[in-house]
Parts: sequence; C-alpha cells; structure tokens
Amino acid sequence: MMQSAGRLEKDLLGEARVPLEAYYGIQTQRACSNFDLSGVHLHHFPELVNALAMVKSACAKANHRLGLLDDQRCIAIEKAAALIIRGEHHEQFVVDMIQGGAGTSTNMNANEVIANIGLEVLGYDKGEYRHLHPNNDVNMSQSTNDAYPTAVRLSILLKHGDLVRSLASLRDAFAAKADEFSDIIKMGRTQLQDAVPMTLGQEFQSFATTLGEDIERIAGLSELLKEINLGGTAIGTGINTDPEYARLAVGYLSEVSGFEFKRASDLVEASSDMGAFVLFSSMLKRLAVKLSKISNDLRMLSMGPRCGLNEINLPAQQPGSSIMPGKINPVIPEAVNQVAYQVVGNDLAVTMAAEAGQLQLNAMEPLIAYNVLESIRMLKQSMDMLKNRCVRGITANRDRCQELVDSSIGIVTAVVPYIGYENASRIAKEALSSGRGVLDLIRDEQLMSEAQLEALLSPTNMIAPQKRRAS
Amino acid sequence: MMQSAGRLEKDLLGEARVPLEAYYGIQTQRACSNFDLSGVHLHHFPELVNALAMVKSACAKANHRLGLLDDQRCIAIEKAAALIIRGEHHEQFVVDMIQGGAGTSTNMNANEVIANIGLEVLGYDKGEYRHLHPNNDVNMSQSTNDAYPTAVRLSILLKHGDLVRSLASLRDAFAAKADEFSDIIKMGRTQLQDAVPMTLGQEFQSFATTLGEDIERIAGLSELLKEINLGGTAIGTGINTDPEYARLAVGYLSEVSGFEFKRASDLVEASSDMGAFVLFSSMLKRLAVKLSKISNDLRMLSMGPRCGLNEINLPAQQPGSSIMPGKINPVIPEAVNQVAYQVVGNDLAVTMAAEAGQLQLNAMEPLIAYNVLESIRMLKQSMDMLKNRCVRGITANRDRCQELVDSSIGIVTAVVPYIGYENASRIAKEALSSGRGVLDLIRDEQLMSEAQLEALLSPTNMIAPQKRRAS
Amino acid sequence: MMQSAGRLEKDLLGEARVPLEAYYGIQTQRACSNFDLSGVHLHHFPELVNALAMVKSACAKANHRLGLLDDQRCIAIEKAAALIIRGEHHEQFVVDMIQGGAGTSTNMNANEVIANIGLEVLGYDKGEYRHLHPNNDVNMSQSTNDAYPTAVRLSILLKHGDLVRSLASLRDAFAAKADEFSDIIKMGRTQLQDAVPMTLGQEFQSFATTLGEDIERIAGLSELLKEINLGGTAIGTGINTDPEYARLAVGYLSEVSGFEFKRASDLVEASSDMGAFVLFSSMLKRLAVKLSKISNDLRMLSMGPRCGLNEINLPAQQPGSSIMPGKINPVIPEAVNQVAYQVVGNDLAVTMAAEAGQLQLNAMEPLIAYNVLESIRMLKQSMDMLKNRCVRGITANRDRCQELVDSSIGIVTAVVPYIGYENASRIAKEALSSGRGVLDLIRDEQLMSEAQLEALLSPTNMIAPQKRRAS
Amino acid sequence: MMQSAGRLEKDLLGEARVPLEAYYGIQTQRACSNFDLSGVHLHHFPELVNALAMVKSACAKANHRLGLLDDQRCIAIEKAAALIIRGEHHEQFVVDMIQGGAGTSTNMNANEVIANIGLEVLGYDKGEYRHLHPNNDVNMSQSTNDAYPTAVRLSILLKHGDLVRSLASLRDAFAAKADEFSDIIKMGRTQLQDAVPMTLGQEFQSFATTLGEDIERIAGLSELLKEINLGGTAIGTGINTDPEYARLAVGYLSEVSGFEFKRASDLVEASSDMGAFVLFSSMLKRLAVKLSKISNDLRMLSMGPRCGLNEINLPAQQPGSSIMPGKINPVIPEAVNQVAYQVVGNDLAVTMAAEAGQLQLNAMEPLIAYNVLESIRMLKQSMDMLKNRCVRGITANRDRCQELVDSSIGIVTAVVPYIGYENASRIAKEALSSGRGVLDLIRDEQLMSEAQLEALLSPTNMIAPQKRRAS
Repeated sequence: MMQSAGRLEKDLLGEARVPLEAYYGIQTQRACSNFDLSGVHLHHFPELVNALAMVKSACAKANHRLGLLDDQRCIAIEKAAALIIRGEHHEQFVVDMIQGGAGTSTNMNANEVIANIGLEVLGYDKGEYRHLHPNNDVNMSQSTNDAYPTAVRLSILLKHGDLVRSLASLRDAFAAKADEFSDIIKMGRTQLQDAVPMTLGQEFQSFATTLGEDIERIAGLSELLKEINLGGTAIGTGINTDPEYARLAVGYLSEVSGFEFKRASDLVEASSDMGAFVLFSSMLKRLAVKLSKISNDLRMLSMGPRCGLNEINLPAQQPGSSIMPGKINPVIPEAVNQVAYQVVGNDLAVTMAAEAGQLQLNAMEPLIAYNVLESIRMLKQSMDMLKNRCVRGITANRDRCQELVDSSIGIVTAVVPYIGYENASRIAKEALSSGRGVLDLIRDEQLMSEAQLEALLSPTNMIAPQKRRAS
Repeated sequence: MMQSAGRLEKDLLGEARVPLEAYYGIQTQRACSNFDLSGVHLHHFPELVNALAMVKSACAKANHRLGLLDDQRCIAIEKAAALIIRGEHHEQFVVDMIQGGAGTSTNMNANEVIANIGLEVLGYDKGEYRHLHPNNDVNMSQSTNDAYPTAVRLSILLKHGDLVRSLASLRDAFAAKADEFSDIIKMGRTQLQDAVPMTLGQEFQSFATTLGEDIERIAGLSELLKEINLGGTAIGTGINTDPEYARLAVGYLSEVSGFEFKRASDLVEASSDMGAFVLFSSMLKRLAVKLSKISNDLRMLSMGPRCGLNEINLPAQQPGSSIMPGKINPVIPEAVNQVAYQVVGNDLAVTMAAEAGQLQLNAMEPLIAYNVLESIRMLKQSMDMLKNRCVRGITANRDRCQELVDSSIGIVTAVVPYIGYENASRIAKEALSSGRGVLDLIRDEQLMSEAQLEALLSPTNMIAPQKRRAS
Repeated sequence: MMQSAGRLEKDLLGEARVPLEAYYGIQTQRACSNFDLSGVHLHHFPELVNALAMVKSACAKANHRLGLLDDQRCIAIEKAAALIIRGEHHEQFVVDMIQGGAGTSTNMNANEVIANIGLEVLGYDKGEYRHLHPNNDVNMSQSTNDAYPTAVRLSILLKHGDLVRSLASLRDAFAAKADEFSDIIKMGRTQLQDAVPMTLGQEFQSFATTLGEDIERIAGLSELLKEINLGGTAIGTGINTDPEYARLAVGYLSEVSGFEFKRASDLVEASSDMGAFVLFSSMLKRLAVKLSKISNDLRMLSMGPRCGLNEINLPAQQPGSSIMPGKINPVIPEAVNQVAYQVVGNDLAVTMAAEAGQLQLNAMEPLIAYNVLESIRMLKQSMDMLKNRCVRGITANRDRCQELVDSSIGIVTAVVPYIGYENASRIAKEALSSGRGVLDLIRDEQLMSEAQLEALLSPTNMIAPQKRRAS
Repeated sequence: MMQSAGRLEKDLLGEARVPLEAYYGIQTQRACSNFDLSGVHLHHFPELVNALAMVKSACAKANHRLGLLDDQRCIAIEKAAALIIRGEHHEQFVVDMIQGGAGTSTNMNANEVIANIGLEVLGYDKGEYRHLHPNNDVNMSQSTNDAYPTAVRLSILLKHGDLVRSLASLRDAFAAKADEFSDIIKMGRTQLQDAVPMTLGQEFQSFATTLGEDIERIAGLSELLKEINLGGTAIGTGINTDPEYARLAVGYLSEVSGFEFKRASDLVEASSDMGAFVLFSSMLKRLAVKLSKISNDLRMLSMGPRCGLNEINLPAQQPGSSIMPGKINPVIPEAVNQVAYQVVGNDLAVTMAAEAGQLQLNAMEPLIAYNVLESIRMLKQSMDMLKNRCVRGITANRDRCQELVDSSIGIVTAVVPYIGYENASRIAKEALSSGRGVLDLIRDEQLMSEAQLEALLSPTNMIAPQKRRAS
C-alpha cells in the first residue's frame, strides 16, 4: 500500500505517502498495514460508516454553535457527512473491523475521509489539511473514547429497525400458518414422548408468540443504547471541552439521526462500561436460541417422508443428495441453526471483550462492535430466509396427523374425567400390549356413547380446559 | 436406600419400601437412585423448596374453590405447605438438582412430602394416601409442566430481593468511598497508558454508577418471570382443568407469594419457552462481567507495594504467602473474578439447555433452574464478601497518586488550551527524553504564571469541562 | 466459627482462637470466614485431599534426604499424610473450592492439618508448632505456587482411571448391544430424512466406536498433567531451594503416587501456564459433546410409543407423568444431556480463568481445579447411570424397524445398480405420490426377480459395499 | 442472479438459467439464492477449494482404476482439479460458508465447476453434461457425506503448516528477546503483588516456552484429521461403492495431497462424528488463551510511560490519541487479545454445532469448517503481526527494572536463609512503614557483609536454586 507516488502526509510517527485518489489519510493507512485479521472491513457495515458521519456532523454543529469552528469548516464537514450518509465514499472505510487502539483507527478513518471530502467541497485538494484538519477540525472536542462508542451505539440503532421488521414479518408468517392449521388435530409431545392432542395451529402459534415477545424486548433493550458518553472525551471528565458542548452535541446528534439520545449521567462510567452491549448481545443470543429451537422443531416435524413424523412438509429449495434419488433436505432451518450457534459464539466473544476492559476504557470495543453488528446482520438475513424460503411454503399432512392421534394412547388422558382413572389405565395398558387403538377399545366396551366420543374429540374440546362433568 | 423395613409404596413401575421416617415417597426414592450427578440437592436452595410449597398451596385453594378438593384435604395441604415455608422438613427434598424428567422428580418430591405432612396433620400415618394423595390431591389440576416452571420462576423471585439488596449495598459502599476520595487527584489511564487526571472519587463513583444501573435492570427483567403457565397442565392446552382454574390458581399464587403473577397469554408457548430464564441469566452474566472488571481494577490499582501502581491499599484478610515474608494478596477480588467466570460458564449451560427444548416442552429445565439459582447465590455471596472484606476497608495513597500526576506527561493535555498544541507537544517530548516533569518545564519556561498553574491543577478545574479562554 | 474457647493461634495478621478439636489452624479458619461462595468444600473431592497429602509426603522425603528436615519431623509428616491417604481426617479440609489467593488457603489447610496430625503422632498437642510447623516444616522448600498446581494435577490423575473405566464400560455396553442388534435392518437417516438402510447394530457400534476413541485420547492428554513445577517455589526460579531438591521431590512424588512425573523444563513458564488444564478440560468437553449426541439419538429413536420412530425401547426407570396415565420418559439420557451442557459451561469457566493469569502466576487456578474435578465427577456418574439404567436394558422393535425399511423410498438407492437410475427415480416418484411401497412397485413391474430382491435385502448386502453387477 | 440469458440447466426441482460464463451450475446457483448469511464465500478459504479439488481428483483415479470411469473423463477431472489447485477459477466457488444441507452445496459447487472446466478441457461447451456429469462422473462413488468432511479435514491440514510456522517464528522472536534480556534483573510478581526477583530474559523465555509447547501439540492433534471416511458414502455403509473403492480412494488422496491419510475403521461412526474438529478447535482455543495471556502481560509491563510499571517499551505503530499529545498505545497486543476472544467464541460455535449432530450425519459441519478455518487464519495473521510489529521491536528499561528491585521488599525473601526469618520479617515491616529500602536497612544494621550482599544479588544467585549455607 506504501507506494512512491501519492501525496505525502505526516503524523506523530513520521511521514508516508498515501495514494492520490484516497480520501483516507496516513493514519488509516498505518492501521491497514497493522491490522489484517478478520478480512472484514468497516464498509462491510454501512450502518457503522453512516453513524460515524452523523456523529461528526453533530459535533461540528455543536462546535460551530460555540464559536469554536468557523462557518466554512462546519459546512464542509456537514456536506461531507451528508454525502457519506447518502451512500457515497463508503469504500474509503478500509480498516479491519478487528483492530487494536480502542477504535482510534476507525475514528481517524472517519476524520480523514471527511476532511478530504470536505476539502474538495471547499475547492481544495485532498491533503491540504490547514484548511480542514482531521484532528483539529473534524475531531474537535472529541476523543475516540466518546465519538467511537457513540457511533457504535448509533450504528446498532440504525439496523435495529430492520432486525425488528424481519422478526415481525417472520412472526406474522408463523401466525398466518397458525390460522391455516387451526383445525388440524395432532399429538402434542413432551420429552419426545406422545402426550395429549393439540392443533397444529396451536403449535405454529407458539412459534409466533415466542418471536413476538422478542420484538418488544429488543425494542426495550435498544433504549439502553441511547445513553451515550459524547462530550466525555478522553476518560469521561470532559477535559478540553466547553461546559455547554456535551449538551449541544447530544442534542444535534438526536436531530441528525432521528433517535432521542441522552447524555449518560456519569460520563466516567459511561466511557468504560460495555454493559449495554453485553445485554443487547445477550438479547440477540436469546433470539438465536428461540430460532434454533423452532428450526429444530420444524426439522423434527417434517422427518420422513416415510420413516419419521411427517406431520408437515417443508418446501423443497434444492436437491438434497447426489447419491439418493429424490431426497429433499430441510436445508433452510439447518442454516438457521448454524447462524444461531454463531450468534451464541459471538455473544461469548462480546462477553470476554467486555470483561477485559481496564480502568478508564475498554480497548476491546472494536470486537464488540464487530460481533454485535455481525450477529444482527446474520439474524436478519436468516429470518428473511426462513420466512421466504420455508415457513410460507409449509404444508400440513392432515391425515397423517389425525392418524397418529387416533392410534395414540395419550388421548386416554382426555377421557379420564369421563371413564375414570382406573378404566383409563386399564385401557392404556391393553392398547399398548394388543397394539389396538384406545378409541376402538372404548367403543368395544361401550364405555362412552358415540356422541360423547365425538364431542370429546372435536377440536375445541380436546385442546382447551373443560368444565368437569359431575361424576 | 432400598431397605427391607419401611412402608410399602407402589407406583406405575411396581412396589418398593420407603424408610418409615421419610416424608418423601416411592417416586422420590426412585429419583434418588436414578440421579447421583451434581451432589447438590433440592434443599440446597430453600427458595425452591418454599416456592414449590407456595404453588401447591395456591393450587389447592383453587381446586377447593371449584369444589374439586374437599375442606379437609385443602386445609391439610395448606398447613403442610405453611410448615415448609416456615423452614421445616426441607431436608426431605432430596433429589439431585440435575435430573432427567423435566422436573417431574422435583414435583413428585414436593407432592409426596406435602401429602405425608398433610396426612400427619389430619391424624393419619404417612403413606395412607387414600386420605390425601400426592397425585390426585396435591397435584390436582397440575402437571409438572406447569407447576414446576412456575415454582422455578417464583424461587428466583424469592431470591431476587436478596440479590438486589446486596448489590445496592455494594454500590453504596463504593459511593461512600467515592465521597471519601473525592479530592484525591490521580492519573486516569486508557489502554493502560497514562491519560489525563481525574479524582480517585470519580473512579470509585464509576464503580457505584455501573452497579447501580444493574439494580434497575435486574428488577426490570425479573418482571418477565412473573408471567407463568400455571393452568396449562401437560402442554399448555389446559387439558383436564376447569375453565376457571387457571385464573384462580394464578390469583391465589399472587396472594400466597406476594408477587403479582400473570397468566401467559399463550400457554402452549409458555410451556416450552425458556426465554425469560435466558435473559435473566444473561443479566446475571452482565453483572458478573461488571464485578470482574471492577475486581481487575482494584487489583491493578493496588499493585505493589513497591513495584506497581500502589494508588490504593486493599485491607489484608489473610497472609499471602508461606515463602515470602509480609506478602499480602488481593484475595477477595480474586475470588470475585472466579465467581464471575463461573457465572459466565453457568450462563452458557443455561443457553445450551434452553436451545435443547423440543416440541411442547423443555426437558432440560432442571439444569436451567440449578444454574440460575447457583449464580444468584454466588453473586450475592461474593458481593457481600467484596463489600465487607474489601471495599469498606480500602484506603488511598494520596501522596503516591499526586506524585504520579506531577510526574506524568499526560497533564500536558490540560494545558493545551493555555499554551497551545505546539508548545504542548514540544514540552511532552522534552519531558519524555529528559525524564523531567512537565510542570517543571512549564515553570522553567515561564509559559504560565504560578497562579494559572495552580488554578489549572485544582481538582475542580482538571476533571471537568472548562470554558475555553480567548486565545 | 470464631469462638472464645479453643486454642490461640497467630499469623501475620494477628491472633485468633481455633476450636480445640480442629486439626486445621488459624489460616484455614480465616479462609473459611473469607470465602463462602460455592458451598462446595475441599473434602468434596477426596482425590484432591489425597493428592495434597502425597505432595507433602514427597517434599518431606526430599527435605529429609537433603538434611533440611530431621528424622522425627519427616516421619511425623509421612505418617500424617498416610492417614489422610487412607481416608482419615478428610472432614478437616474445609475451605471453599472457590477461593482467592491462588490456592494458598488450600495449601495452608493441608499444611495445618498435617502439622497437627503429625504433632499428635509425635505425642504433642495440636498447636505446639515449635515441634512441627505448618510453614517451616510441612511446607518446607515449597510455595503454594508449586505445591498446589502439582497437587491439582495429581488429583486429576487419581480420578482419571475411574473416568476411563466408566467410559470403557459404557463403550462395552454399547458394543454388546451392537452385537445383539447386528441383524436388525433399519433405515439410516441423514439430516433427519430417510436415507438408506443399515443395521441397528451398526448404529450402536458407532456409539461404541466414538466413545472408544476417547479412552485413548483422554489417556494421551493426561500425560500432559505429569509435567509438574515442583521445586519452582514462588515464581519458578526455585528461590530458597537446594539445587538438588526439585529432582528429589519429583522423584519421591512419583514413588508415593505411582505416576511417572517429570519436572517441567521451564519452571517459570510452568508456574503460570494453565495449558494442560485447558486442553484436558476441552477433552472432557469433547466427551460431553459425544455423550450428548448419543443421548439425543437414543431419545429420538425411542420416540413414541405410537407417534414417533419407536425403533427402540429405553427401560422404564420412573413414572413419567402425574397427569398422563402410562407415560414413560427417557429420563436417563435427558440427565446425561444436562451433565454435558454443564461440562461445556465448566470448560468455559476454565478457559476464562486460564486467560486471566497474569505475569508469574495464575491466581484463578482454584476455579480451574474445581471445574475440572467437578466435570470428571459428573461425567463418570452420568456414564455409569447411562450404562446401568439405560443402555443395558434397551430393546429393539425389530418389526417396526423392518416395516419402516419396507415402506421407505430410500431403499431405492440400493437398487439403482440393478434397475438403473432412471427406473429408480420413476419408482421413487410413483411411490411418493401413490403412497405405495417401492418394493411393491418393483414387484408389480417385475423389474427384478424375487430372488434378486431377497438377495438385495439380506443384511450383508444392503449395508456394505458391493461389487457392481455388469449392466 | 436469475437472468433470461444464459444456459439452461435442470435438476430435481426444475430448470433455471445459469450465466454463460459461470463454471458453476444450477445447484450452486440455487444455493447462492438460498444462503446469504455470513457474506463469506468458499473462495475466502483457498485451502478449502484446493482440498475439494484434490478429493475429486483422487476419487476419479479410484473410479478409473476400478473401470467405472473412462480414460477421457478421468483425465478431464484430473486436469480441472489441477488447474484449481494451481489457483485458477477459485472465484467460481461462490456459496456462503454458512449453508444448510451438510455441505451438499459446497460439494455440488465443486462438482459443477470441475465438470465445466473438464468439459472445456475436452473441447465441449459448459453445460454439455452428457460428456462429463457433475453427479454421475465427478461425484461418482461419493456422497457429500464422505467427500465433504474429507475435504474439510484436508483443508485444515493444508493450512496447518502455515499456522505452525508462524507460531514457531513467534516463539523464536520471544526466545531471541529472552537472550537479549538475559541479564536484566527485575521483580517477579504473583497475584500482581511484588514477589521475588527474576530476569526479564526468564520472563520472555516463558513466553517462548509456552508457545513452543503448542507447536508439538497442534502437530499431534492434526494427526486426528488424517482419519477420513472416504468411501463411506451416504451413511458410512459404503452403499453403491465397489468393495475396493475406499482403499483406493484414500490411497490416491494421500498421493495427491502429500498427507498420509487412513480410512476410519468404523465408517458409520466417522460419518457423523465431529470429535476431531472439536478437539482441534479446542487446541486453537488453547493457543488463543496463551496469546491473550502474553498480550496482557506485554501491555501490563509496558504501562506508562510515567505512571505504570514501564519495564519494557513496545514499538510505536500508530499515534494513540487525537486529544492527548504524544500518547502511544499497545495496539498490537490489543488486537491479539481480540482475535483470541473471537477464537474462543468460534470454538463455542464449533462445540454447539458438533453437539447438534443427529443420527447418521452432522448437518452443521459447514459451520464447523467455517469457524476452524477462520480461527486458523486469524491466529496466523495475529501471530505474524505480533512478531513483526511488536515483539521484535521491544526494548527494556534496564534501569527502571533494577530500581524497582532495589526498592522492593520482596527481595527480603532471598536473604531469609542468610539473616533468618525473624530478622527478615522485622526488616520487611520496617521497610514498609518507613519507606526505606530493604538493602539499606540490612546495610545499616550490618547484618550482612557488602560482599555477601553483592553475591546474593548477582543474577545467577537470585534467580535459581542455591545451596543453603550452614546456619
């Protein structure tokens, strides 16, 4: 990357040439040389790039208001930020997501790119930093230690809507199937053993319900991310800022971003604490666990086609085997499971990074940002995939479900209040040893009238509480 | 455990003798034979035993109200439960916390003990179940699958107050130290490198603040545990219950326990979903991560006595070494670190158990209960230990803190607005190469008046935002 | 624990009374007051108590040989250690397994108990330490930092045999079932979809094989634990030891314990490195993962009795439900799953504790010891449980297995070389749409002779490679 | 991706157009549509692409030898594979690393690309599969279930050398520093408290030693990966293969790859077992833990420049702060820490995926492959970074180290054998309370001659066992 042509830039460590066309500068370039680890770069997460631009824009407004930044520079920064937010120049955010320095390289990447875009806006050449300086102007009144965590929080909030929309949409898809399957009676199973009847609709509704709960929960926890430490600068004491600055900067960021941010009451604490990320990542883990459980169930219920439960059919998305003719596999939920395990692994990385914070800062925050953003991305993608390529196309094998209920012994539970526990147990044992059906045996013994049996087995009666008959 | 003497009991699998003095019965005994795994038994967690008794009492009231349980039996169950809640007979809860069967053994242990205590209350002998039956009476209208998860939730709520009180008390201890240390100036450090000054009070206040946030958060998440599936019976369909039962049972449980429970809107979902536990355990993990970070800081700040930071002294609790005379070690925060790692490990066990739920039930709930309760216990104990045996006795080395500030280069940051960035950089370099102090150099060069310097270095000026002087 | 009666002891921090009957002393007592965390005490792991005694005995021999310890004191220490190894006085090891101080409290508990037993052996009263001193004599030439890690390693080795024997025995139980089921043809399943036939024997043999591999692997990794840092004292430099001491002490420990220990080549590294524990714990995790997978399979194959695969029956160990008559659940493998998740959680705690080591020591080693020993214990117990209460009693439903094979479409794979891929695909589709059996369709079309079909379906032909017929 | 132009291909699910220039085919295209999850594609790991090509080549040779594949087709497959191994066409491996289907999409991507390259080699157009068919020819005698796991194992072996070389090189860098620092005396620290002296060389040698151990260990565990299930096809029974095939294919793969593979003795077990990956990933975790511990130490030892230990200097790689003039941060070890946490997280994802295997296959293997390969990549990169950008440039502050030793109290340990424990304790206390140095006090009291003191403090005497003087 160090080529002989290019503009000469310098920093604390000395001079280096930066490619002429690059909007980033010497510090970004050093970071790229230092860190080649994950192979995933900042621009992989447009929301992070946009969030950085919003933070820089808001801080410029605050500095301008305080008379610390002149009109021209402020306008240049705002215009540069606006271009980025519109999606331009993202490819200039080139640092690896895993980086040392507590986010300094990310912050400097933003400072340098915005300065150079701004210079061009003002009619100068890239690199003429005396007219607009990455540190003195773009980073004015900021430290990486407040600007970066604020941007990371904002980036999550920017994706949070997408995540929740995908989640709600998946929930709706399950709920629609619950309606469709509301009159299909099937056996419920506990501990993988036949239990008592339910409807397939109830089963799918439980998927919808459990996902629905997380919509609310994710929204609730995202509130924690709106508490920011902007204005705390290096260690939260606000050194080298104007007493009015923090309030102004937070206010402008709310304006620019559309989220209602509030300043943390204890900026020293807020500079080192990763608690909001830990809990938000845990919430993603909870969603992953639910998606994995649901995927396991979908795969189990569709076991077959002949030698398994075969109560439902997942839509075929690709041939399943090169060696076994006609085999179709549940590839979509399998992929969801894998995403879920990755999210749990990512949550552990977040946990360890949070624990590793020391004294006034957590230097491991880049890893936290990477894993939370990656988990959000993968969860969103996998939920869209599950909805579009699996749930919406699921069909039920109504007859198979009914046949299993009819042949089951578990339905004897439902007749206990009618024929008594003793009769029920005797019938259950006879059914198991003879291989005959419980209903047949009850009919044979004329323990209940046909009308009673029919009433008992109507969906509404088997799957909900019932007034107990007088014995 | 199978002895020839004792009373004969029978169940689905056959007959066995139970010790005459045992209040538990045949099913508990089978469970003890089956499971000898963790070596930790139900009575290790009195809150779980009490919660089981409360659930049984509430259900009895509901059944009685519906006319399904006669006066005498209801009174016997209530009295037996009351005795347990008062702390009696806990030693009869003997099943291993790790058990197969989705909690059936725990539920039956409760059913059997309550039945036998109740029988004695009524003047009968243990085992005369025709007068009060573990299943038919104590477990009436219940399944393990609703009674057990409800009891586990309640058991956590019963300990939740203790946990939060210990947390608040530790927070207060840190806050008191923050007051005590409010005028001690010290160097802040980011990425373990000298940064800018702050007070030791600010540092300790950040510990208080970060812990204080979790008080609110734990309280908030404990609300999730108040949504219960009582009345759902086997799979959430409420089979074999009266339509009025669930409402009544939940109401009585609120009365008996003092917590405002509400019935889950989707009992099928609530029967298999472990989401509330996953999130609550994650919250415990977050607290553990914070405690570990604080402990790391306390150990770092007290490094020494001669060859480390030595800014604070932890109170000596025990001799540190048999080989090195006079050595004292930070044993208390070290123990807190270890508890924290265990809590993170426990959270993973909870996560995996939650993911392993299948179809209409999560058979791994006993592991979840065990780990959440154990984490609560260890966190509470470790916070009390940290408060009583460490934080309260911490003293500051005021002179050492001041000396480090005076000799530091980082304070040059604070004079940037006064002597300019260029002068500041030059001074910094000179200080580093010559080994001299920044202040000495500034004085030598008479860059600032003594009055200015003193103003700058007064605590209130170094550690908070400042109006920037006109240049 | 601090009572007014008792003998007066003193240490660096001052004086305290210790109960007269206690063999432990003042430092143990302080540790008990300091640490009340896990509620699990040293004597919960007899292997650790015994290992401590063996280390003390070996060091005494080495000191005696070097002329540093007189005959009488050496003999007293050896006799005291022998009593402990024989199982006496274990209840005197009372410190919590989770403790700060890098094991100092555990080491001092051992030093004090051995000193006091030794004093009685010599005819003195407990506490007359001038005749036999916990530090000067029992701990001579040792530091916690070498004696404790050595004892922990030895304690694992002492249990390692039990673990491997239980594992081998479980493997054998599966192998015996493999023999028993060697002629039962069933459907193999990949991705939960019907695949191609195999024998139930092959399936059970795969369980035996996979467990068998771990016998060898655990044995191999236990070798790492035989490299010890005895003689390194405080930080591995061997300060205050005789140049001959380390060699002698390691040699005597091999003699006393029966394991061939060797001294680490770099004692400084060996004092802080936890790598052997990390890898050994990971190996336990691997075994846990295998046991969990097997348990999942056993539960899946026994789904039913009517509405699942129902290929095998697990022996009933306890009634499964209070509400559903006749229900039996797979409680034993469920418990194994839970142990497995706990072991994975424990491994994470070990990992975090290992990462937290700093500079010349890992202060978190007590947590590592606790988790590794606990995981060994739970794995051993769960494997014995699985073997005795589940595997040995498993029976197969031969007819059900055959019926599923007969009705399956997957067997069409086996006839591809006989009837061609095109015919096979057509038959597969027809079978799926018509609901008829593949064999019936083949018979109908007379694509193969009855003799050919029979040959094809004989176990030896369906479940192994076959010379392809000339087409 | 579905465009109207392009060649028409078909599979079990129907027809679709594939871009004319694509070497992959319809099944790869479907997989790309199905899975957009991690955003990391197969070609991100060239070793995996190469391994797939080697497996296909070896199998073709075996089929040819058995007379099942004609000369022309075999040559075409071999040539296509050779081109890929030479680095061509890697961009055609486009499926997401996270995918459902147990690797079928990866296997089909390889089959299709090789078929189409082969077709061109033979002079045909892409898509003319009757001359060389992805399934019938390239995948002949294979199933995804044996070809894919074999390729994954091989891909790890192909990177294993790089990993070990980087590790050895880092070890050597530490060892060189150990030599350079061999005569610098410094304080050793246990539990972050001053302990006893050692050399900085010993400290760095311990880093070299601990890393050196893992070279051997990784090599040892990589042997497990050489046991493969090639020839087992769908479920390990070898259905539809010639009895000689497995032996031949494994032999050719050894030839083609240069690794000595052996066939698993139980192919059914080998088809579903992920044990080798679990253990290998755990070994990567162990290495990560060691690197993290070393990085923590490097950061701690270089704390400063004025307010910390400041015993060593890490080379500056980039400016540390925009707000604090002159600040340099330990960015390189910070990045290593983060990689380590990610590797631990990845190991957890591997663990969960391994546990999720069911019956005859583990459908989650793609996630296992992804995480192991990613961890290898990141570990290698981070070790190179640590060596080149940190370790090699580390310098020691010899005077600072000596000064801390001189002022320490811990050195009193070394004089215990000379002046006695009682004198030592008294001196230690006096030093601590008066703030004076231990040596000064000893000199004052003339407890030892200057010659004795000098002898004592010579490096060779303080840092190794010593013959104890007659008292």
